[in-house]
Amino acid sequence: MKKIYNPDRSDWAQILKRPTSTINDIEPVVKEVFEQVQQKGDEAITTYTQKFDGVKLDQLQVSIEEITQASGKVSPELQQAILLAKKNIEHFHAAQKTGRVEVETAPGVLCWQEKRPIQKVGLYIPGGTAPLFSTILMLAVPAKIAGCKEIVLCTPPDRNGNIHPAILYTAALCGVTTIFKVGGIQAIAGMTFGTESIPKVYKIFGPGNQFVTVAKQMATRYNVAIDMPAGPSELLVMADDTANAAFVASDLLSQAEHGKDSQVVLVTTSKDLLQAVEQEIEIQLDALPRKEIAKVAVGNSVAVYVENDAEALDLINEYGPEHYIVCVENEEFYVNNTMNAGSVFIGNYTPESAGDYASGTNHTLPTNGYAKQYSGVNLDSFMKAMTFQKISKEGIQTIGKAVELMAEAEGLQAHKNAMSLRLKELNNND
Amino acid sequence: MKKIYNPDRSDWAQILKRPTSTINDIEPVVKEVFEQVQQKGDEAITTYTQKFDGVKLDQLQVSIEEITQASGKVSPELQQAILLAKKNIEHFHAAQKTGRVEVETAPGVLCWQEKRPIQKVGLYIPGGTAPLFSTILMLAVPAKIAGCKEIVLCTPPDRNGNIHPAILYTAALCGVTTIFKVGGIQAIAGMTFGTESIPKVYKIFGPGNQFVTVAKQMATRYNVAIDMPAGPSELLVMADDTANAAFVASDLLSQAEHGKDSQVVLVTTSKDLLQAVEQEIEIQLDALPRKEIAKVAVGNSVAVYVENDAEALDLINEYGPEHYIVCVENEEFYVNNTMNAGSVFIGNYTPESAGDYASGTNHTLPTNGYAKQYSGVNLDSFMKAMTFQKISKEGIQTIGKAVELMAEAEGLQAHKNAMSLRLKELNNND
Repeated sequence: MKKIYNPDRSDWAQILKRPTSTINDIEPVVKEVFEQVQQKGDEAITTYTQKFDGVKLDQLQVSIEEITQASGKVSPELQQAILLAKKNIEHFHAAQKTGRVEVETAPGVLCWQEKRPIQKVGLYIPGGTAPLFSTILMLAVPAKIAGCKEIVLCTPPDRNGNIHPAILYTAALCGVTTIFKVGGIQAIAGMTFGTESIPKVYKIFGPGNQFVTVAKQMATRYNVAIDMPAGPSELLVMADDTANAAFVASDLLSQAEHGKDSQVVLVTTSKDLLQAVEQEIEIQLDALPRKEIAKVAVGNSVAVYVENDAEALDLINEYGPEHYIVCVENEEFYVNNTMNAGSVFIGNYTPESAGDYASGTNHTLPTNGYAKQYSGVNLDSFMKAMTFQKISKEGIQTIGKAVELMAEAEGLQAHKNAMSLRLKELNNND
Repeated sequence: MKKIYNPDRSDWAQILKRPTSTINDIEPVVKEVFEQVQQKGDEAITTYTQKFDGVKLDQLQVSIEEITQASGKVSPELQQAILLAKKNIEHFHAAQKTGRVEVETAPGVLCWQEKRPIQKVGLYIPGGTAPLFSTILMLAVPAKIAGCKEIVLCTPPDRNGNIHPAILYTAALCGVTTIFKVGGIQAIAGMTFGTESIPKVYKIFGPGNQFVTVAKQMATRYNVAIDMPAGPSELLVMADDTANAAFVASDLLSQAEHGKDSQVVLVTTSKDLLQAVEQEIEIQLDALPRKEIAKVAVGNSVAVYVENDAEALDLINEYGPEHYIVCVENEEFYVNNTMNAGSVFIGNYTPESAGDYASGTNHTLPTNGYAKQYSGVNLDSFMKAMTFQKISKEGIQTIGKAVELMAEAEGLQAHKNAMSLRLKELNNND
């Protein structure tokens, strides 16, 4: 870790700079796959699956038989763990339901807001070495609570054309409607346009590599929404002398093992703590199976010492971390005044991994400083707010004149006329 | 209007096709302006303002003096109308506040969600023939209620370097922080990068022409969020024999006068009503100052007769209208079962123009079918949801094992380790 003491504010942007990735060279590939899938549907999907995943599939959709068999291949202990996590995630996301907001804004003018589910959503779950079943919990559970009618899941098959049983088990458990053995760009294109097998969806959720990220951006050009822009995962820990250095080091490393481009930042008001964490990282790093990845990520990361809490807070708000651990005596100051963070973990016994898996909060969070303006995935991510109004004859009298005046001032005569006709009719009937 | 009777479902997509605009040829211009503004700041802004708006400005920011003088130039009647509208909009949007959602998901695992304001927002208000002060109400009022710290407004100057007094009056009234005489692409670029005068913002709101639309899309590549993707405004009216044909015609025309690419759709279960509306449109059209625009829009639009309510509902949900007027006897059926619409206006005395100006609902709504997955602008558009968690020693015992198992199954050893260290420490202290 680079250690920086009392940096000047003018250097913050440079110090906190995130690892960036260039995506321009990926766009042509993504464009080609999108065009092919749009034109040829399943045929194109099958071709790309053969090309990128090395397997020729006769059927894209996972069969009921495959799903039924999956639970037998997941250990009872892991099943229990997944059930516990599901219960907590359900609990927290169900509590986010908002009722109808109804207001009579003026006599006879009744306005209300209701949230209704997005009817068709698509979830993308990456393949690769580890099966990310936890992300299915984070996406399918709130989708189900929201009331989404179709919950489509795409995930790449292995070289034998199979999906990891933990993925299938979790998807079935959480109410996913249909599962497809399709990964990468072609999965996103399939859910964007719809094919003979894959339904077109209205919003696509889920993580992925650079190809998937660019594909999701491309999808937004075709009337599909996405959960949020993506970037490498990151963690900022704010710690003082009350923090447990070994715990802090373990949290920083749990973020660092995600990928070489992961970023971890330690901010502290204690030079002793900084030294202690550094030593602990050295000790713990060696025991990790993914130490080569973690080493690179730690190498790119920074530990910043600042003189006082006010300075620390400003720096944290400037950064806007995705994950944010607060291990300080004066925790209320940080919790109440941090305006930009995805998810906040408070105290020595709240590791990020709790929220990654099982505490109940969502782990799909804004990276890359997007915590300044984006929410993490939550129940509302699967709904949209609609407004309604019903105006009585009295209501027309209450606001009619104002509408006429404003429409006229904006030069929109037909807008005015729609109101005038109603006012005239009411006055004639008086 | 094209009249279509009992269309086959397979033809719906074609019938309901929206007028599309090609934006590819605009991108190079937008890119150039963005690059110049990023590099040269105010100097570039001033140059483009001279080029596009025909005026050379010494100062981009509207002075306090100009703002103070504005109210004297807005008629007392219009001021009263704006105040009434503001009160209703405030009332409706303040009611949308959601409190902290707090859940103890499992013993010792406390999770909560809080919404915090986006600190810096930018509002774009187009220039042109009419001053769209109503849009300032729709954006600045909820921004203020949300607690946004900086509310920046950009709007193009006229050839004399002035801003319409109704714009300045409304902006000052609603708590806009700073107003700039900057329009078009350069305004969006200015708020994206920040210049010597214009602050960088985190999210940009507001309507605009094709150049502004493409510029807003471009802004999203530079870590800025936007309110929603834009498209031409649209209205769908669902009416039966209980609807007042003259009122329906006036509503359709109020939408049609927006622009030649506006789309209006009439869906009805009554052939008589369809004829009557058509006649009324002829009569009312002639009296409109913007009749040339409205005529083109009406010409592009469709009136669809369907046999029954179920068929009508499916068609409406397939279209997903921005504005949606329901004038039918069985209004509950439509109101409760429409899943895709921006804002719903119910009954003969609820013209769209009420919601456009003064009833209290927001008029910044999803067009182009985006009602399927996007909310219109509302209080939450100016906030982001953050999650928090605090786990006690008991909580670690409750979920620790599950976290370990899941992390291990996903191949993330450091994630597991962060939990194991804490469990071990607790067990050692037992």
